[in-house]
Amino acid sequence: MQANEQEFRQVEQFLKDHDDFLVVSHVQPDGDAVSSTLVVGWLLSCLGKNYVMVNEGPIPQRMSYLLHSDRIMDLSVTPLSKPYKHIICIDCADFRRVGKTSDYFASDAEILNIDHHPTNDGFGSINLIVPGAAATVQVLYDFVKWLNLRLDHDIATAIYTGLLTDTGGFRYSSTSPSVMAIASDLLKYGVDGPGLSQLLLEEMTLPQIRLLTIALNGLQMSEDGKISWVTIDDEDMKQSGAIHEDLEGIVNYPRNIQGVEVGLLFKVIDENTVKVSMRSAGKVDVAAVAHSFGGGGHVRAAGVRMQGSLAEVVSQIVEQVKSRL
Amino acid sequence: MQANEQEFRQVEQFLKDHDDFLVVSHVQPDGDAVSSTLVVGWLLSCLGKNYVMVNEGPIPQRMSYLLHSDRIMDLSVTPLSKPYKHIICIDCADFRRVGKTSDYFASDAEILNIDHHPTNDGFGSINLIVPGAAATVQVLYDFVKWLNLRLDHDIATAIYTGLLTDTGGFRYSSTSPSVMAIASDLLKYGVDGPGLSQLLLEEMTLPQIRLLTIALNGLQMSEDGKISWVTIDDEDMKQSGAIHEDLEGIVNYPRNIQGVEVGLLFKVIDENTVKVSMRSAGKVDVAAVAHSFGGGGHVRAAGVRMQGSLAEVVSQIVEQVKSRL
Ligand SMILES: [Mn+2]
Ligand SMILES: [Mn+2]
Repeated sequence: MQANEQEFRQVEQFLKDHDDFLVVSHVQPDGDAVSSTLVVGWLLSCLGKNYVMVNEGPIPQRMSYLLHSDRIMDLSVTPLSKPYKHIICIDCADFRRVGKTSDYFASDAEILNIDHHPTNDGFGSINLIVPGAAATVQVLYDFVKWLNLRLDHDIATAIYTGLLTDTGGFRYSSTSPSVMAIASDLLKYGVDGPGLSQLLLEEMTLPQIRLLTIALNGLQMSEDGKISWVTIDDEDMKQSGAIHEDLEGIVNYPRNIQGVEVGLLFKVIDENTVKVSMRSAGKVDVAAVAHSFGGGGHVRAAGVRMQGSLAEVVSQIVEQVKSRL
Repeated sequence: MQANEQEFRQVEQFLKDHDDFLVVSHVQPDGDAVSSTLVVGWLLSCLGKNYVMVNEGPIPQRMSYLLHSDRIMDLSVTPLSKPYKHIICIDCADFRRVGKTSDYFASDAEILNIDHHPTNDGFGSINLIVPGAAATVQVLYDFVKWLNLRLDHDIATAIYTGLLTDTGGFRYSSTSPSVMAIASDLLKYGVDGPGLSQLLLEEMTLPQIRLLTIALNGLQMSEDGKISWVTIDDEDMKQSGAIHEDLEGIVNYPRNIQGVEVGLLFKVIDENTVKVSMRSAGKVDVAAVAHSFGGGGHVRAAGVRMQGSLAEVVSQIVEQVKSRL
């Protein structure tokens, strides 16, 4: 699904009418957030505009190959000298996602909100929201083409990065014919698709693989083989040398076992708190499970932070899931 | 790289001039072999021809969703009643790859050889070999389009299957702009790309994940972090309940560790035999390593069967790799 002419025209007008933009994406930026920020920056350069690209925190080290990613300022390190009146918010489903970057939004700021999350509440003065797009870079690709700007290798690499990470390497349900057609076009600019896949999707650090090993050693299955889970505590984190983001992806291992309907990851936060990540093959609505304990998410991916010991939380969640099978 | 007009015309002529074809692919058929067999069968049906689809052995259970995959006869179970004069060999780099299906080739058989392996030696009477294609299904897709045949959902699903498996989910270096453009086109026929990715690339059986866990528990690293390896013996296979094909993919875990140049899997065959699988990030030519011990393969993926105890073989191979770093 593409944005319509009129939306594009409105965005173009906003960019042409103003100058000195603040370009922001969401806290703990993922591949799509970083890449979209760079695409918007490039686009503003093409239009001869001044701008600053910022994030509340640092850009993941793994994305430093992206041209000008070092120009995205980390506000936790480098504060800005003034507030900005013209803001471009990227890949943010709601206003809170911009985090502390909003400290630098002028009180009368006008916000251009560019996103692809179906839940985006349209918080901008101008909104370019395309729920059918797999990533914000897809929205931007269409806009760039509509503007008749000519892509180059570096900007094509950024767009491919956003597509790869937001579709899990062309594997999520958002992988539409348009996504693949765009990927095909981007490869023509010499993008190293296989190299990016290796770096962003295949590569693991040694602590990450140690953590995975520890998690798999404790893999549990329900008697009927439909629920599988792993648990991770502080000792596991210490022993492996892993950091918080290394937890990502581990819940897919129990979930991807043949016959498993729900895969779970229990992460002990402290003696009386456990964070639960849930993944469903589709039959069980894990958002509903999460919701019943005060959490949230989507049908196939949800999470909740719960009070109780690890044993208590595991038993509560597994019982809930069982009752919905 | 597409085949040229003349090659396509020759193939078309061969199909139109004859009837009663034997369609065969290689032993231990992969996704591309099974899918290509079905595409050729469908194509022959469209042309109103008689044919039999066979393989030396069974089709992997995981591919039973492919329409008419149950019509590919397993010659180890059901022998044929007569020899065939017109053979279509698919995805076979050389003649030996057809295995025992050749027992049913008439002595004066004419072979149409359709493949994408750059090493294909052109063993056919007619050869349609496209080394630039990522999979044999890509060659067939182009041929189907050239013939102006209209794809349907089932045949598009078969082609997508071959592309997915031969490119590792659009991650190998064979992932060209054409591959992605074809994938885009196939999705328009309603192919469930994400579902196929889950089934073919993400899903693991319980024995498979048990085997992975055992392998990871024994993960070794060279001091400089550039070589990593795992070992698997009979006891591990028994303990996990894994079968031979569950070994596939495990070598990628050591190889995908950040900083690792060469990942190795040592599989004990018997007291004095070890099978070695090698994967390189690109710097080390593992085919050369394999070759020096009598094995073979490609720069980034190679293998060799060696005589010696596990400890001996590990030390020999690791030393060889070290000397090439
Ligand atoms: Mn996104
Ligand atoms: Mn193939």
